[in-house]
Amino acid sequence: MPHSAFTAVAVRARAASTELALATRATKDATLEAMADALLADVGPILAANVADVDAAAASGTPDHLIDRLRLDESRLAAMAQGLRDVAALPDPVGEVLRGSTLANGLQLRQVRVPFGVVGIIYEARPNVTADAAGICLKSGNAVLLRGSSSALQSNTAIVATLRRAAGGSGLPEDVVQLVPGEGHESVKELMRARGLVDVLIPRGGAGLIASVVEESTVPVIETGVGNCHVYVDSAADLDMAERIVLNAKTHRTSVCNAAESLLVHEDVAAEFVPRIVRALQEARVLVHGDASFAACDGVVPATEEDWGTEYLGLEISAAVVPSLDAAIAHIRQHSSAHSDAIVTDSQSHAQRFVAAVDSAAVLVNASTRFTDGGEFGFGAEIGISTQKLHARGPMGLPEMTSTKYVVTGAGHTR
Amino acid sequence: MPHSAFTAVAVRARAASTELALATRATKDATLEAMADALLADVGPILAANVADVDAAAASGTPDHLIDRLRLDESRLAAMAQGLRDVAALPDPVGEVLRGSTLANGLQLRQVRVPFGVVGIIYEARPNVTADAAGICLKSGNAVLLRGSSSALQSNTAIVATLRRAAGGSGLPEDVVQLVPGEGHESVKELMRARGLVDVLIPRGGAGLIASVVEESTVPVIETGVGNCHVYVDSAADLDMAERIVLNAKTHRTSVCNAAESLLVHEDVAAEFVPRIVRALQEARVLVHGDASFAACDGVVPATEEDWGTEYLGLEISAAVVPSLDAAIAHIRQHSSAHSDAIVTDSQSHAQRFVAAVDSAAVLVNASTRFTDGGEFGFGAEIGISTQKLHARGPMGLPEMTSTKYVVTGAGHTR
Repeated sequence: MPHSAFTAVAVRARAASTELALATRATKDATLEAMADALLADVGPILAANVADVDAAAASGTPDHLIDRLRLDESRLAAMAQGLRDVAALPDPVGEVLRGSTLANGLQLRQVRVPFGVVGIIYEARPNVTADAAGICLKSGNAVLLRGSSSALQSNTAIVATLRRAAGGSGLPEDVVQLVPGEGHESVKELMRARGLVDVLIPRGGAGLIASVVEESTVPVIETGVGNCHVYVDSAADLDMAERIVLNAKTHRTSVCNAAESLLVHEDVAAEFVPRIVRALQEARVLVHGDASFAACDGVVPATEEDWGTEYLGLEISAAVVPSLDAAIAHIRQHSSAHSDAIVTDSQSHAQRFVAAVDSAAVLVNASTRFTDGGEFGFGAEIGISTQKLHARGPMGLPEMTSTKYVVTGAGHTR
Repeated sequence: MPHSAFTAVAVRARAASTELALATRATKDATLEAMADALLADVGPILAANVADVDAAAASGTPDHLIDRLRLDESRLAAMAQGLRDVAALPDPVGEVLRGSTLANGLQLRQVRVPFGVVGIIYEARPNVTADAAGICLKSGNAVLLRGSSSALQSNTAIVATLRRAAGGSGLPEDVVQLVPGEGHESVKELMRARGLVDVLIPRGGAGLIASVVEESTVPVIETGVGNCHVYVDSAADLDMAERIVLNAKTHRTSVCNAAESLLVHEDVAAEFVPRIVRALQEARVLVHGDASFAACDGVVPATEEDWGTEYLGLEISAAVVPSLDAAIAHIRQHSSAHSDAIVTDSQSHAQRFVAAVDSAAVLVNASTRFTDGGEFGFGAEIGISTQKLHARGPMGLPEMTSTKYVVTGAGHTR
């Protein structure tokens, strides 16, 4: 293997992970508190670095909403520090015994949570992810290799420098937190091919980023966060409830992965519900891409085939009338990104069938898709929402950032 | 996507998986019993197909031990049938509630085990894997795409035909069990790239097969079964116990992944233990590839650097003297395939340090590496032994063949 700058960083991460895996909860929590203190102490240099990123982004014509994601201020920095303290307060997943028994031959068997080792995180514009991801990885005993977007490079460099100093000051290796060196695609590629040095890769960002990581990586990947979420309004729905849930799921926050992107309505309630929900959505300034039934309403644009698979992340929604519960299920199975899909119904049998047949990370009954969230689920911290089936599915908290190990203790046992 | 023969098969598997996911335990168990009965009823055609495979292998000069793996007889067929009945008797993992709580806002949250959907298994010569894998996948609610070796094609075709008829006769789609069509690498490649149609790929076989699947697959992979397992004899070891464990781990069965391939001895006990264990191993016809300390004994051949990473799967072992516990740990961390590594010691502190610092799927104290096995662990059935950290690590039983889903039930909840 050529000893590139990346390899050197990954080898140091591996060595740091060995030490971190053996660290006590007390040491890890003290380090997280020290990191929080250090972020607040270093507010000057961090915000100065961020101003440089923001200015460069503005000069290159970056749209305002992306610049807003990139921008830090004292209150966002305080939130990052508080996030690290919140992680310190959570239980340590490492060392938890998941199974334990004494076998018939007297062997003692235990399955114990252990850290992965080295985790790579590839993410986009928000520099607050840098501290969040570092905190979750540290608490779960993993060294982390962070790869943010080049637009946030100066901010991320400043934040990581602060976090590393705090780690070193708390008796852990500074290399438990590192930025992936280099700016081009080559260094991301090295990260994706570093099987053996990096144990898990978690891309956080848009569908394009995630697809390219899945395609190119030989390191095991946990996919997160693409959400083409559906709300299905059943024939047995309370239509007042349905309206509240559709509006909440679509408009409460539009740029997030658990926002609704598609509405399905059972034909038995379509005559009443379609005009009503179109009016309500339009009052909330939502553009409806509708099938023929919806397109009969003023202001609805005809949906194309592509709309059914589109994650708008804005004030737009696709909408269709379906002839049956099973047609709704089939539509969702075909088009959903398998993140979060909801049914509104008062029918127990319809709810049961929907829950069983919709193959998504979260299936919601009479609740907004917006509830699929580590915070809402009470996990305390979230590294992302997995939309894959292997290892972790749905919101990922600290336990999902670990592997396990079997410990078998005998007294000279042989077969 | 071109509609190849493979795509057609995978699309049928996907459809069958939807039906199978909703099947009750009673239906699945009845199907497994019917499959067992059918294997016994079809002994004639299955053994005839196997004779054709065995004859072709013999004619092409296949070594005897590979022909032995390929060969079926009435007792092996009876064992396959019994394996299916054993799986029927195990609890159904699907539907198990792993977590459940009512959130502060009244939302009811449950995390429930669900099948993956479609599982691909790529395996080598043994045709009994065909029935074993089909049974485990069926019980865990997964449709399976089986890709055995071309040397076993006629045997596998006959077995799968029998299993499919039994599935159909029990009211499940026959397509819950299918062989991947085609013989060349192209069709394996299609299987490995069928992301979206196939949920998980499990290669079972040698290191070369597994490495190529990991390299080429975009479908998530669970690596299994490469075992470069170590036994470390500590300064505080009971040397009688150490001798028994080393001999058992090396010679009880040599062709399996949990057999020991490397022996490390602390220098404080080397003068006594090295000549003794070399003699005992040689009496058991084991060739020792030793470092300088071991090579001083008659009949020991000098180990090359390559030996430390070699899985012999035969009557050979690499052996070295190490200056300390930490040197043993470092050696194992560098060379182990992270399957199973054992320490023999009466020191509580040494055992603790070894268990914490050796980063393998199973770490054994005063017990033979041969115990890392789903049967020995009491899992009842095993699809393989995972040596990766994502999703499952160590012996994989039925629960490891599932994913989970969050079910969130509200009463019109919005954020």
